[in-house]
Amino acid sequence: MCRWIAYRGETIALEHYVTAPAHSLVEQSMRALEATAGTNGDGFGLGWYGEHAEPGLYHEVRPAWSDENLRHLCRHIRSHLYFAHVRASTGTPTTRPNCHPFAHGRWMFMHNGQIGDWSLIRRKVEAMIPDELYPARIGTTDSEAVFLAILGAGGDKDPIGAMERTIATLTDMVRQSGTDQPLRFTSALSDGRNLYAFRYCTNDTANTLYYRESRGNVVIVSEPLDNERDYWTVVPPGHMVIARPEERVTLRPFLAETSSVAAE
Amino acid sequence: MCRWIAYRGETIALEHYVTAPAHSLVEQSMRALEATAGTNGDGFGLGWYGEHAEPGLYHEVRPAWSDENLRHLCRHIRSHLYFAHVRASTGTPTTRPNCHPFAHGRWMFMHNGQIGDWSLIRRKVEAMIPDELYPARIGTTDSEAVFLAILGAGGDKDPIGAMERTIATLTDMVRQSGTDQPLRFTSALSDGRNLYAFRYCTNDTANTLYYRESRGNVVIVSEPLDNERDYWTVVPPGHMVIARPEERVTLRPFLAETSSVAAE
Amino acid sequence: MCRWIAYRGETIALEHYVTAPAHSLVEQSMRALEATAGTNGDGFGLGWYGEHAEPGLYHEVRPAWSDENLRHLCRHIRSHLYFAHVRASTGTPTTRPNCHPFAHGRWMFMHNGQIGDWSLIRRKVEAMIPDELYPARIGTTDSEAVFLAILGAGGDKDPIGAMERTIATLTDMVRQSGTDQPLRFTSALSDGRNLYAFRYCTNDTANTLYYRESRGNVVIVSEPLDNERDYWTVVPPGHMVIARPEERVTLRPFLAETSSVAAE
Amino acid sequence: MCRWIAYRGETIALEHYVTAPAHSLVEQSMRALEATAGTNGDGFGLGWYGEHAEPGLYHEVRPAWSDENLRHLCRHIRSHLYFAHVRASTGTPTTRPNCHPFAHGRWMFMHNGQIGDWSLIRRKVEAMIPDELYPARIGTTDSEAVFLAILGAGGDKDPIGAMERTIATLTDMVRQSGTDQPLRFTSALSDGRNLYAFRYCTNDTANTLYYRESRGNVVIVSEPLDNERDYWTVVPPGHMVIARPEERVTLRPFLAETSSVAAE
Repeated sequence: MCRWIAYRGETIALEHYVTAPAHSLVEQSMRALEATAGTNGDGFGLGWYGEHAEPGLYHEVRPAWSDENLRHLCRHIRSHLYFAHVRASTGTPTTRPNCHPFAHGRWMFMHNGQIGDWSLIRRKVEAMIPDELYPARIGTTDSEAVFLAILGAGGDKDPIGAMERTIATLTDMVRQSGTDQPLRFTSALSDGRNLYAFRYCTNDTANTLYYRESRGNVVIVSEPLDNERDYWTVVPPGHMVIARPEERVTLRPFLAETSSVAAE
Repeated sequence: MCRWIAYRGETIALEHYVTAPAHSLVEQSMRALEATAGTNGDGFGLGWYGEHAEPGLYHEVRPAWSDENLRHLCRHIRSHLYFAHVRASTGTPTTRPNCHPFAHGRWMFMHNGQIGDWSLIRRKVEAMIPDELYPARIGTTDSEAVFLAILGAGGDKDPIGAMERTIATLTDMVRQSGTDQPLRFTSALSDGRNLYAFRYCTNDTANTLYYRESRGNVVIVSEPLDNERDYWTVVPPGHMVIARPEERVTLRPFLAETSSVAAE
Repeated sequence: MCRWIAYRGETIALEHYVTAPAHSLVEQSMRALEATAGTNGDGFGLGWYGEHAEPGLYHEVRPAWSDENLRHLCRHIRSHLYFAHVRASTGTPTTRPNCHPFAHGRWMFMHNGQIGDWSLIRRKVEAMIPDELYPARIGTTDSEAVFLAILGAGGDKDPIGAMERTIATLTDMVRQSGTDQPLRFTSALSDGRNLYAFRYCTNDTANTLYYRESRGNVVIVSEPLDNERDYWTVVPPGHMVIARPEERVTLRPFLAETSSVAAE
Repeated sequence: MCRWIAYRGETIALEHYVTAPAHSLVEQSMRALEATAGTNGDGFGLGWYGEHAEPGLYHEVRPAWSDENLRHLCRHIRSHLYFAHVRASTGTPTTRPNCHPFAHGRWMFMHNGQIGDWSLIRRKVEAMIPDELYPARIGTTDSEAVFLAILGAGGDKDPIGAMERTIATLTDMVRQSGTDQPLRFTSALSDGRNLYAFRYCTNDTANTLYYRESRGNVVIVSEPLDNERDYWTVVPPGHMVIARPEERVTLRPFLAETSSVAAE
């Protein structure tokens, strides 16, 4: 089911959220509390923006909890906007190209969820990727295919609109495929400047999402990094979080109609 | 460019050809002599038939030369028909699912070559894989796609015919794609009983292939395993090797017309 | 804390106990029930005797639950005596040479436990390894050092005596080191013919050990492979299991006096 | 035999020397020109100083040439003093803890060479590591043992003196061990501020070392990173390079007497 965090704000070391907190993401790789899979040991990844337009990436197939490289990188790399993700595979192999986050140009994406019964709609989703982006498909996950489909739907110019169109299309596709498995989509997207996070599901089992804002810094997480529950805001299903420079974080409906219909 | 060996005959330990000879496949992983890439260090794989219809597989992303597991497995696993492959990537990532040999049901396949400019025809080749076989595509290589396309073209009942039809289609596809890169296809295919090997190229740079037959046992190789050149038979371009139980090994033209036209 | 199984009996495929049972060792790598560490994801290993005096070995740093190679090897390798081990590190790095089982010549060994506070006695334990065996120390674990110390204490000719002498010495060493951490030693040793397993601890927290005997076949495990508790015999602390060809399995005290004193 | 580079100067991205030059270190991992081993594919490592006293480290067992993480890290990490190393093992296993550079506190070290016949003197060299540093021995290489011995000999306060004393002792130790294999020691040491590099051998086969100084920046390398030979200064055998802040780089004899005697 995966666990992830996304940060946007002052430039800080990655360790601040990835390894240091009591219930840090690395701790969650061994013992997640709000996921169906308590163990997220099928690889992990870091992505961070620095002085280049494109983010840096670090992907590894080993579990996060025993990776000494991860501790060094989180201590030494600083960023104003970064993603970290620990993976519990829903079926695709544990390879580096299948580890989140994914990046293309200045865009970065990561996902926690599932796209219905992937075997039923894989080809249709891959067909949503335009030819010019298809060489960027280096792995085999549903998540990477959806990311490239979003970019193909105009994500670079209109990320929220492209996300809505793509997820609406996927919602139809999953329903028409005849599966009873939901489309679960708790994800994060960024261009290095703006950070968007989404919590959506075609039934009432949306994967959890929280955020905390403080002095212009926002951290968005699959589950809280500590026991101070009061400091964490729940993102309701069918909602998105928008964190832009010099603006307060906003919470907005995301495909709410579709979602509520779906949840009936 | 990769190097490989395929064996069919009496049941022997894999080490007999994979690790023991002076110029064994493991030696070739570090210092191949007849390949454009002298180093074949982008992963490797073993596949062997035992008491099950389906072959066993071992894939690893590390170079063969330093893999202690490989030495143990080659010493302890015995088989009457096995493949081994050391990989030099032509661009796809070094992951286990991208390592040869590939298997599906009782069929096993490995390849040394390239399919023109893969980025130009990847989608067309993937479209050759029938829906029912598409879930078996767990990696991203051209080779795996071609293998599943061969099975989709009737490989299970008519392996040679399916191979000819598929490679003829690919030859057209590569030419129409407008690339000047050839289709190079030096490969092996087996169902656990019969062993087929192919040397084909759309120009005159076919990757090398040799075989040696002795007392009913045949070993087919990218390059000889020792300096005894007289004992190795060159497979000419546009030819195939057929090794069936209780028959002498035969050498036959394979798409010779296409190939010779191509080589003009 | 690790989990392991050891088998001695008719030649069978490794999958019979490693991957097939409801609570197989691979299942225990994700969800062990009787260990302080529920997750045993810090590497794993297989060791098996075949036609050579020396066992074959397969070590991997990735978790057992996602290793496709492991499934293939367990399905295709057959043995009359084999070990399998999933690791939860007590501090030493996750490397292949630190994965159990360890082998030297015809001897094979694996361990679940800890040797007091390893940092306090590491040099003394390493000093117990004779010079001629020191080149065989390729990793950094306490377990490998103890194995080589046992062989150095005459394990090849008198395995039980060497084990007793070594563990008695270690017991003193741990006590004199001033730590309050126990020596926990639940281990298996074999020469390819006889299988010995030990459950010992200097306090009352000995790691669990069970066995099941049926028609001359014995499987010894850290925890039962299924819910049929009645079929599994508990090995009491301070005891050893001896499984020899053409003899019934026997249970004997092992350093019982030392152990009971320790447990007071 | 390994290849390495060390840089000290203005803060720059690691890619400037590790991946960008025509004959970059990553290129040398596949095709080294001045080493007995042309392929340096047995793991690699990066170490860099940033805002902490202790360096960051990245170690990987796969070859440098195919590691996408390495390209990302070299592009995104900037440092005023960094090491990079590609490994050709002289016998110890390919594990992360056996990859250079090694670090302890603020000190970092890497090595290209061999310590005579390691199997003959390993225990004696390990005995040179003081008890308080022995827990820092997490791998099994000769190089890590020598590094900890140097620190144990007072390296923190007197790095050059400690290096001389340690290498002189090792020189005697190797000679007395009765081997005809030399002590080859081409290494780099730093505390994050000063950079020291050494070229030494007990016979006339010292591993190569070069440096280039330009506007206060110095890069020290196993072999030149380009064809501009005139811009590279050869470090003669029995010499050391000292690069300190706001000083010109100096070249001094290092154990020259011992070395010249050795070379007779």
